[in-house]
Amino acid sequence: MSTIYDIAILGGGPAGYVAAERAGAKGLSVIIFDKRALGGVCLNEGCIPTKTLLNSAKVLEYAHEASKYGIEVNGVGFDFGKIMARKDKVVKKLVSGVGMKMKHANAEVVMAEAVIKEKRGDLITITADGKDYQASRLLICTGSEAAVPPIPGLDKELVLTNREILQLKELPKSLVIIGGGVIGTEFADFYNAMGTKVTVIEMLPEILTGVDEEICAFVRKEFTKRGIEYHLNAKVTELKGKEVIFEKDGKVQSVTGEQVLLSVGRRPNVQGIGLENIGVEFSPRGVKIDQFCRTNIPNVYAAGDITGFSLLAHTASREGEVAINHILGRKDVMRYNAIPGVVYTHPEIAGVGLTESAAKAKGIEVETRKLPMAYAGRFIAENEGKDGFCKVVVGKKYKDILGVHIVGGVCSEMIWGACALIEAQLRVQDVEEIVFPHPTVSEIIKETIFQ
Amino acid sequence: MSTIYDIAILGGGPAGYVAAERAGAKGLSVIIFDKRALGGVCLNEGCIPTKTLLNSAKVLEYAHEASKYGIEVNGVGFDFGKIMARKDKVVKKLVSGVGMKMKHANAEVVMAEAVIKEKRGDLITITADGKDYQASRLLICTGSEAAVPPIPGLDKELVLTNREILQLKELPKSLVIIGGGVIGTEFADFYNAMGTKVTVIEMLPEILTGVDEEICAFVRKEFTKRGIEYHLNAKVTELKGKEVIFEKDGKVQSVTGEQVLLSVGRRPNVQGIGLENIGVEFSPRGVKIDQFCRTNIPNVYAAGDITGFSLLAHTASREGEVAINHILGRKDVMRYNAIPGVVYTHPEIAGVGLTESAAKAKGIEVETRKLPMAYAGRFIAENEGKDGFCKVVVGKKYKDILGVHIVGGVCSEMIWGACALIEAQLRVQDVEEIVFPHPTVSEIIKETIFQ
Repeated sequence: MSTIYDIAILGGGPAGYVAAERAGAKGLSVIIFDKRALGGVCLNEGCIPTKTLLNSAKVLEYAHEASKYGIEVNGVGFDFGKIMARKDKVVKKLVSGVGMKMKHANAEVVMAEAVIKEKRGDLITITADGKDYQASRLLICTGSEAAVPPIPGLDKELVLTNREILQLKELPKSLVIIGGGVIGTEFADFYNAMGTKVTVIEMLPEILTGVDEEICAFVRKEFTKRGIEYHLNAKVTELKGKEVIFEKDGKVQSVTGEQVLLSVGRRPNVQGIGLENIGVEFSPRGVKIDQFCRTNIPNVYAAGDITGFSLLAHTASREGEVAINHILGRKDVMRYNAIPGVVYTHPEIAGVGLTESAAKAKGIEVETRKLPMAYAGRFIAENEGKDGFCKVVVGKKYKDILGVHIVGGVCSEMIWGACALIEAQLRVQDVEEIVFPHPTVSEIIKETIFQ
Repeated sequence: MSTIYDIAILGGGPAGYVAAERAGAKGLSVIIFDKRALGGVCLNEGCIPTKTLLNSAKVLEYAHEASKYGIEVNGVGFDFGKIMARKDKVVKKLVSGVGMKMKHANAEVVMAEAVIKEKRGDLITITADGKDYQASRLLICTGSEAAVPPIPGLDKELVLTNREILQLKELPKSLVIIGGGVIGTEFADFYNAMGTKVTVIEMLPEILTGVDEEICAFVRKEFTKRGIEYHLNAKVTELKGKEVIFEKDGKVQSVTGEQVLLSVGRRPNVQGIGLENIGVEFSPRGVKIDQFCRTNIPNVYAAGDITGFSLLAHTASREGEVAINHILGRKDVMRYNAIPGVVYTHPEIAGVGLTESAAKAKGIEVETRKLPMAYAGRFIAENEGKDGFCKVVVGKKYKDILGVHIVGGVCSEMIWGACALIEAQLRVQDVEEIVFPHPTVSEIIKETIFQ
């Protein structure tokens, strides 16, 4: 009879590979399956390739704006093919890095589609490539894929998702983006920087649902100035090839793009992996889990996008960790109150914890404090003619930090400290005692708290 | 008789203006004196102007390296005059910002040299511009100035300090820097980026005393590759005009620069301000203070460089805050275990807490964990061909985070979170429960802790 693994992991994305690392480091024997590529959507078709592209856009922006800082450049341009090729190189390097991590964790990697076959007692059998594998625990983290809504006339061959748009060989002259969430907004920023005429059609009254509303409006105005066209409160009713027909204020309009990107959400990959063979229960969003990331079956865990909940790589990784900690008998529970969210546009957006409106919706009494980024000396030194702001949401009762929301500067790299503040349940007066380095843009967080 | 202020503040630098802000916000009546310009050395001749120059160097570096990211630029150059003029503009803007803050705090600003005249009972009299002012408390924060050691032949008219080098009208073809500390290293980086031939003469075996030794060596090697010449263990024995004569390994050598920068440390401004008139006591470094930033005289406080201790703007600001809190009767003490240090070179250096060697020197048993920056996916996406690393010093006994030291990426903006970890006395397992946004370079901190 073959080996019985301590844990089988379905899916090699941020939930799966981090879980495999942590499990391997603690001496558990691990087998991990992935049908496509280690690293999952995040590494192959999401976070990493988009951030690599947006970095090229940033370098281009620096070149365009160099003269503001006394630097002279002539003839600024770019090579779209090179930008895309570098993105592929970065992805390849990081995928191989995940492979190394799996080796280091002594995890057996099976690159094949895996299906849960059965569960007898505690023993779970997985079939992949015609072969059966057995494990005493299972972690399901098969992720999500772009949702394709039933819009009349939608031809999957003509419309791009995040996957296909990352494989374009030619820079489109125009791009219509259906859905102004994080994915849509990041691609809007990148293609606008490349000179593509970008139109965003969003069903809701504002882009970037979930992000602080004032920040959303700020970024949308900035992007509008740069030439991105927004149609808010606009419902796409039909597609005719690459013509997108939408209804707004009772009027029917249409816009045609050389390319059309569909980014209206993601749905968990719950089909075809044999969940029904072991009786895994669902929530309305995806696989149902408890605070230990356990499904209804005690030795079966789930983490990441398959739960349909947070749809963020770092949530997935943390859930993977929590599952492994539970297996190891270490006290740890999953909390969602300090999960950061970053939008890697220029300007960057980063936030964690409650927004003012989310606090209101939950009936929590809060004070919101706000300062322009220009309050931080280094922001002025490094961001000629730019703007941004920081908002801190403070609980009225305990003066605890409940949320930090920033637009501008490299806030993506500052926000983790705010996660630490919230996670450690620090109050305003505790933050006063933290010494922030001067001059940094990060000081804006302390300044905002103490304005 | 004239007003009696609740507090008189001598010096409008980072200690003084922050103290004035905090005091004013709490309703204290404040008078603040400065003989030169609000903002102190930090804003006028230190942190802010140097960071503005280094930002231009960064933009230049981006332009030079643009092709790595698929961006094409031709004819990269710079205008030294414009770079210097922008620096002046930034300083002016921020100085006026401090003025606004003083207004907002209802603080009376006196731009004149102030001398402590006498103390009768609790009442302190300050003389400035021939006029007497009275206050019931005093905060002394007159800062520091560049130390000028008694080197034979040193002509103060010929040799520059941080003050004069920031006023150069012409880019020097060559620059000899005496002293490879933070100031010397930042100017070395900037002028090297501008094409100046830079030579650094350092008395100690390594540059950047106090910074993690491995980071110092890493940066020095990187800078050596870029053409900066280092003479370590080299003692300057004489100056002949702009020829710097030094002894190294028993041999006398010399190097001549079109300009010579002296950056061998700073000394507190304790002369000529009347400290003797009220009997303020000294430590071997400067004015002696207790944990409440009080001098030997109960209603006289001191903060910042005048204590000769930390010589960092943010330490000064925090000390100013502690003094005001003590006056207000709020429980707060000054701690120095979580003061960050940043060197704004390219690559950036940022650290907080104990280094491995400092822990050893204190007899604290620690484990040091280290990872290359390339472990963070975003670092690879944004830093083609670059390098760096992160080190975390963990206490062996409690597994508490004692130090975080980073070189590479925008670590200057990440480090405040590490200050929060140390200040909140978090342990390794607490950090595991903090969710870092993915993909960010800041994740390297969590990865290093959990490698």
